[in-house]
Amino acid sequence: MTSAPALSSAANPRVKAAVRLRDRGEREATGMTIVDGAREIGRALEANVEVAESFVCDDLIRSAEARSVVARLEETGAPLVRVSVQVMTKLAFGDRADGAVAIVRPPSVRLDDLTLPPNPLVVVIEAVEKPGNLGAILRTADGAGVAAVIAADALTDVFNPNAIRASLGTIFRVPVAVGASTEILDWLARHAIRPIAARVDAPTNYADVDLRGSLAIVLGAEATGLTATWSGQQVTPVRIPMLGGGDSLNVSVAAAILLYEAVRQRT
Amino acid sequence: MTSAPALSSAANPRVKAAVRLRDRGEREATGMTIVDGAREIGRALEANVEVAESFVCDDLIRSAEARSVVARLEETGAPLVRVSVQVMTKLAFGDRADGAVAIVRPPSVRLDDLTLPPNPLVVVIEAVEKPGNLGAILRTADGAGVAAVIAADALTDVFNPNAIRASLGTIFRVPVAVGASTEILDWLARHAIRPIAARVDAPTNYADVDLRGSLAIVLGAEATGLTATWSGQQVTPVRIPMLGGGDSLNVSVAAAILLYEAVRQRT
Repeated sequence: MTSAPALSSAANPRVKAAVRLRDRGEREATGMTIVDGAREIGRALEANVEVAESFVCDDLIRSAEARSVVARLEETGAPLVRVSVQVMTKLAFGDRADGAVAIVRPPSVRLDDLTLPPNPLVVVIEAVEKPGNLGAILRTADGAGVAAVIAADALTDVFNPNAIRASLGTIFRVPVAVGASTEILDWLARHAIRPIAARVDAPTNYADVDLRGSLAIVLGAEATGLTATWSGQQVTPVRIPMLGGGDSLNVSVAAAILLYEAVRQRT
Repeated sequence: MTSAPALSSAANPRVKAAVRLRDRGEREATGMTIVDGAREIGRALEANVEVAESFVCDDLIRSAEARSVVARLEETGAPLVRVSVQVMTKLAFGDRADGAVAIVRPPSVRLDDLTLPPNPLVVVIEAVEKPGNLGAILRTADGAGVAAVIAADALTDVFNPNAIRASLGTIFRVPVAVGASTEILDWLARHAIRPIAARVDAPTNYADVDLRGSLAIVLGAEATGLTATWSGQQVTPVRIPMLGGGDSLNVSVAAAILLYEAVRQRT
């Protein structure tokens, strides 16, 4: 605890600069993003993500997890600003109020910066639009122990605050990259990673395909499916059986079914 | 198309009565709910759900699916009110604007009204709080061809408009029931349905368990897990492996992994 009084003006330039990071343009211009929530900040710290500044509202720090995260934020040496409940309400945006927000520099999302283990399992999501879906896929991908999540032709920025939130911070743990679909297809070929694409009209059931070895699970946007880039001979299309009245599954649900079938076959 | 001018006053008593159905208390008092969206209404009609009244805004009816749904709403003989864009904006609540909203009487949710096929696969979700999670589970359950989704000690009403929306209307196709956890456990025993419960601390991997035959997949709330009711000897706990930094999966993702493993083993 500092003895300085908590900052209580939402008009403070540092608070205003932090709030501006909710806009994609500002994130791209500064190379920074805003992380809301104790668990999310904790996972960023565990991944050695660079923290530029943080904001803490002592009156809202209630859990042991949140107290521990504040202590670790203090250890980083980055500026830590104590703020009032009112200012924290401006800074935070999730449905929880953990009392801590951090400004961080996300890691590189360059394909060529990914380091892969032997026989990697990776996920490629094309044209993902909703940050919530991206975050949900990252959370599941972390659970399945994937080597990387790659966003192809993404319509949202990967380190969107809502993606960070929906991932519960696992976005800082799973290596992520972005690129054009054609570039990713080349990258997979160069690394001898076999792409398996989810398609509603594929003739083969996913469970009948060998999902061991170096493998990429490729998923398209829910409304439009995968683009023609993923229709080549090097890509194996697979179908998740639809036994009811609906014609498709949520993209993060489809990712979960395919990833955990791969995990099952690999162990 | 009628020749009557579209209703343009949001103060109209029928419009106000329809909007009130967004409140749970009003849904419980009237036994009705409000369905927003062409696909959702279409699925309710396919399931022969009773439509009491509908509201259509011709200026927002753009897809062939929406036009077909309006034609089918007209065939029901229930009152169909043409409304202005402004009134439809009051009535609709999703992020799409399909131009059609229906007031329907949801089917019974009594356990004893469920009719089961031989060797049923059912899902039990305890203490589900978010209508969006319930809807997501229903959509996946429909895909997996389950015989019923049962909400135990539910903290939301099943036919919450947001659950209907998140299910894309599959909620009208999958039989649903509600009950207390103890009552459901008895019901499962009476029908010789074996409960398999997802627990993060279970010693057995879900993929090592026989998921054929009469089976219930039981899931608890994400934050608190299953209550002690589901800890008895008659319940088999199973674990979904967590290979990353996170300690749990989203409940609808966990449901998808378990349900599709059951589908895989059964086919």
